Amino acid sequence: MSNKALIIGAGAIGVFYGSLLAKAGAEVAVVCRSEYEHVKQHGFFIDSRELGSWTFTPSQVLKNTAEYVGAADYILLCTKVIPPVDRVALIRPVVTADTAIVFIQNGVEIEQEIVSAFPGNEIISGLAYICCNQIRNGEILHLAYGRLTLGNLPGYVSNKTTELCDLIRQSGIECIATRNIVTERWKKCVWNAPFNPLSVLSGGLSTLDILHSQEAFVRNIMLDICRIAKAAGYQLPEDIIDINIKNTYAMPPYKTSMLLDFENGHPMETEAILGNAVRVAKQAGISSPYLDSVYALMKLRELKLDA
Amino acid sequence: MSNKALIIGAGAIGVFYGSLLAKAGAEVAVVCRSEYEHVKQHGFFIDSRELGSWTFTPSQVLKNTAEYVGAADYILLCTKVIPPVDRVALIRPVVTADTAIVFIQNGVEIEQEIVSAFPGNEIISGLAYICCNQIRNGEILHLAYGRLTLGNLPGYVSNKTTELCDLIRQSGIECIATRNIVTERWKKCVWNAPFNPLSVLSGGLSTLDILHSQEAFVRNIMLDICRIAKAAGYQLPEDIIDINIKNTYAMPPYKTSMLLDFENGHPMETEAILGNAVRVAKQAGISSPYLDSVYALMKLRELKLDA
Repeated sequence: MSNKALIIGAGAIGVFYGSLLAKAGAEVAVVCRSEYEHVKQHGFFIDSRELGSWTFTPSQVLKNTAEYVGAADYILLCTKVIPPVDRVALIRPVVTADTAIVFIQNGVEIEQEIVSAFPGNEIISGLAYICCNQIRNGEILHLAYGRLTLGNLPGYVSNKTTELCDLIRQSGIECIATRNIVTERWKKCVWNAPFNPLSVLSGGLSTLDILHSQEAFVRNIMLDICRIAKAAGYQLPEDIIDINIKNTYAMPPYKTSMLLDFENGHPMETEAILGNAVRVAKQAGISSPYLDSVYALMKLRELKLDA
Repeated sequence: MSNKALIIGAGAIGVFYGSLLAKAGAEVAVVCRSEYEHVKQHGFFIDSRELGSWTFTPSQVLKNTAEYVGAADYILLCTKVIPPVDRVALIRPVVTADTAIVFIQNGVEIEQEIVSAFPGNEIISGLAYICCNQIRNGEILHLAYGRLTLGNLPGYVSNKTTELCDLIRQSGIECIATRNIVTERWKKCVWNAPFNPLSVLSGGLSTLDILHSQEAFVRNIMLDICRIAKAAGYQLPEDIIDINIKNTYAMPPYKTSMLLDFENGHPMETEAILGNAVRVAKQAGISSPYLDSVYALMKLRELKLDA
């Protein structure tokens, strides 16, 4: 049985899913730079509105991946996908022939550089549908949801993926293995592509305010994503836009992750969510003017932030 | 000879052109609410880098148009074109059968409500190509340019327009009468439609930074405007986009009027510059996705400002 995991990216998502694996009996190490001293001493504290609260004591707390002792069955990449993070360099010291590289990250087409760098390794791509935040040093608040969807690239489900799903489920969180994880990525992008940039560019509106004011614009961006996905070979369900709109009206007003990053002065996942989709459109010769517009405006907004 | 003018909107542009008319011998009254006391006592002071400096003492300083004594040959509408300003109500008390209503305002399709309200009056539409600011109470700084283009609706040049041009020119500023003022409005919109909203939505970038980063996006918005203008019957020159791009690269980095309004917490001319163009596109059945996108985003940005 595979039960050694290394979490890279000790943010809310990495710590939360790592703590579930540990709960289920896995040996879970964590790379943790900024909070190293605190976590080394106290571990992590997870406060979940659904599952109660618990302490997560990693098997190893590391400042760098190179310090890892042993051979990881799974490396879970849970960093944000932003250009300055060199994910290949980050994981190279700990990838062995038997390591499965697991992405729990946002965006589309984010796996290619890892696939190219580690062509012999199993690649498990994953998406987290969760609302959780790091509220202070080493402390994670899990507010709602939690479902994880995992699937191997280019399109199958391995034994390791099944085992990983089982571990997560044992801790009480839904985990689904799929042969179509890339399609799932595009489906998630249908929501992310409008609401993330619009929340930032509007100066901080909630999902509900955006929708009440500019539903047609939101739909046009969603439609661009659907057309790009189709051109890339991933046909999304016909009713996906209607369902996303309906569900978002039903959600409480919500601050997107990009808006939280923006407000906290952190880099945003503009390239992972928008730039990669725009590039797929260009390669496929598909016109995506609404997506192109929000991408261009996000690049301008970032340029001003960097100035 | 027609030489009685009433300026409505005592901002930099209204005062500057009003002062030129007064210099040329016209009787120029000004409606001036917020600075009434100061202007009543001291008049306006105009400091022009090209023409020197002078004091402009209006023939009447008024708190409301209804106080105007006499019959104006020209009413010059120089307010910003923003929805809360009811321009019809503003000028109704002073419009006589012989009054020519002159617009010196930004935007496209901004004249219709006045044309409908005063169907018997001569309508002169005008565009100012000028860089001037109000720097303190009653004091206008004229930095550069100044050309005024005037033309009658629906498409001719009247004697009054010719006389108005002559008065402006006597004061040393270029003034051109044209039979195609609506085409000129669309031509100006080609520049305004990208640079005004992009400067705001980017968080304050200059024209040059916008262009260096996102020239293709700027061109796509310009192309939308050209296509809308054509559909509305106003074919713009083929090279207008290239010329605008080239000229903007050659200009010093420039803060747009919309950005200045945004930074000062003033309402922006989103409807006059973008909304009206979007509505013309809809009526004509023309797709204008890049323009639609920046318009939608400006509406979201304004919604957040109003919140």
